[in-house]
Amino acid sequence: MTTVIELWRQALLEREEDAAILTDPANIYYASGFYSDPHERLLMLMIFQEGEPVLVCPEMEKSLVINSGWQGGIVTYRDSEDPWDSVKKMFHKQLPNPFRIAVEKAHLSVARFEKLQLIYPGVRYTDFERVVVESRQVKSREELTHIQQAVDIAEQALKAVAAGLQEGVTERQVVHQLEDAMKRAGADGAAFDTIVLFGEKSAYPHGVPSENPLQKGDLILVDLGARYGRFCSDITRTWVFGGADETSQQRLNLVSQAKAAAIKACRHGGRIGDVDKAARDVLTKAGHGDHFITRVGHGMGMDVHEAPSIHGNNDDLLEAGMVLTIEPGVYIEGWGGIRLEDDVVVGEHGGKIMNRLETLLDM
Amino acid sequence: MTTVIELWRQALLEREEDAAILTDPANIYYASGFYSDPHERLLMLMIFQEGEPVLVCPEMEKSLVINSGWQGGIVTYRDSEDPWDSVKKMFHKQLPNPFRIAVEKAHLSVARFEKLQLIYPGVRYTDFERVVVESRQVKSREELTHIQQAVDIAEQALKAVAAGLQEGVTERQVVHQLEDAMKRAGADGAAFDTIVLFGEKSAYPHGVPSENPLQKGDLILVDLGARYGRFCSDITRTWVFGGADETSQQRLNLVSQAKAAAIKACRHGGRIGDVDKAARDVLTKAGHGDHFITRVGHGMGMDVHEAPSIHGNNDDLLEAGMVLTIEPGVYIEGWGGIRLEDDVVVGEHGGKIMNRLETLLDM
Repeated sequence: MTTVIELWRQALLEREEDAAILTDPANIYYASGFYSDPHERLLMLMIFQEGEPVLVCPEMEKSLVINSGWQGGIVTYRDSEDPWDSVKKMFHKQLPNPFRIAVEKAHLSVARFEKLQLIYPGVRYTDFERVVVESRQVKSREELTHIQQAVDIAEQALKAVAAGLQEGVTERQVVHQLEDAMKRAGADGAAFDTIVLFGEKSAYPHGVPSENPLQKGDLILVDLGARYGRFCSDITRTWVFGGADETSQQRLNLVSQAKAAAIKACRHGGRIGDVDKAARDVLTKAGHGDHFITRVGHGMGMDVHEAPSIHGNNDDLLEAGMVLTIEPGVYIEGWGGIRLEDDVVVGEHGGKIMNRLETLLDM
Repeated sequence: MTTVIELWRQALLEREEDAAILTDPANIYYASGFYSDPHERLLMLMIFQEGEPVLVCPEMEKSLVINSGWQGGIVTYRDSEDPWDSVKKMFHKQLPNPFRIAVEKAHLSVARFEKLQLIYPGVRYTDFERVVVESRQVKSREELTHIQQAVDIAEQALKAVAAGLQEGVTERQVVHQLEDAMKRAGADGAAFDTIVLFGEKSAYPHGVPSENPLQKGDLILVDLGARYGRFCSDITRTWVFGGADETSQQRLNLVSQAKAAAIKACRHGGRIGDVDKAARDVLTKAGHGDHFITRVGHGMGMDVHEAPSIHGNNDDLLEAGMVLTIEPGVYIEGWGGIRLEDDVVVGEHGGKIMNRLETLLDM
């Protein structure tokens, strides 16, 4: 049995839950070592206080599960069968009379929850999220190595592509170049849809790359991340094509200061909301508080967005080894936007920046 | 208001539901014209029997919603706020006393459902899936044009990459080449993680590409799809590097026959299960029934896997204009696998194949 499963069984004991039912593929991978994107098919991991854990998967994935090194039970089903028939049999055998069952409420669908309630109508269903988040948000040394690799790959790609940008290239072409360069540098893929925005379009944090051509004096905002193994990076750089004018340079410096202030606040034991506040104070003091329309960042690991959410009202405390994105920005409709985003490890006295690329690209 | 929303309001009236709450980004796009991948943030579309529909989104996406042409109401929230506070206010104003509310039970999470139940504890929650599926599974002419484009792009990429394959190239390198070629051909991205498997690994329908190098005589299985706009393709070809030996050629012919039989069964009014049966009968008769370990296919459109599921126990009837993948295969551990997959439009007298590439690549 894996260490994670041992840990989670301990949690079941303490929380007086008879079993945990996992459905998020990333969490299933984290606990079992087996990853699959099941699309609409059922993929579930059941962990019991007593007895071996059981993985439910499509029959055609059984060999892959075994090859992944999984030591627990396996329940399979064919596409023409209702997987819940097999699940029900297994449950009734392994868990004849449960009292409390933990599920992933943020992931489990209502439709599947209703199936479960049909099998165990009288059970109290609790949320396992806290246990999973506490396991995942502090990274092991091995996980940090993978994330560092994902950061390095993204930066290598960004550096190479940024150096070759020419007038007239479109946002979509640059997206393509970046994703290609990340794969050449060893990425297993992009961690999310790469964002490249030129000029005024950079004012939209979630803007969509189009056939918009690059012109002299344009702001260039690139938000990209690599996936390496199952781990992600997520970095953003903004610069001006042909060199920054005074206003842009001032705002770039300001956002850079806000980022540095937030990173300084990424220390073990600090309040999470204070990280957001550190960046927001810098921007507000300079008259740009209203232009900073997002939280300052989020946890990152196997998911590009994961716990914790770094917003001002989060009273939870930071722990050494958490990995966070720190990404303050100013977004001014009609002018453009500047976002600078680093990936940061929470440390004893402040954040350790994983990025090696200088903050302000000078191109 | 869009035609889709008009249609769904009509459904609310007929089904005596006061409102529908949509959470699947593809369905929200289908109804509103606005697409966003919200990650963990809340994105919801509410449609009421009476009164204008309302979109709930992060504040930073408001301009994108407006630019997308959305005419209905918009409720926004900041990262530091609980979106359910705003949702609750809006609900109580627009829908003071509902009796039945439809939700997407296959998409809505238990956590969000509990938030909803706190706002409306006494309401009966029904499943809107049937309405959405019936709208989406029969494609419009415009949708078919997009899907055809996605098919053409994937084939163009496959053709180009297959022609240049050389001994020693790895599965992962070929994945990279294919995804790059699809983007060069105009794709907005890959519709799913491209599968390339050499030799015995092709026996695993969901095998994972690795550093496995191509050798003379290897089976090559490529399963790829392009995304064009919001629409997908999904095609598979299998061939032998250096030319097929007799056994491989026989099995390729057999799977090709199974595919043809299934496509013939893709006629308006036919039973969906019979499409699977048509392919399965061909393979079973040849002694390969046990090697065909998947359903014969699935619906395809904005999602690469969508309704209907084409398995033997599906008693629903086909409708002209549905788009299906038809992908029979034989999977023999220790030897390898052959899968051939076309994208097919259901027609009056049988399926119309969208692929233009010949079934059996001869390289």
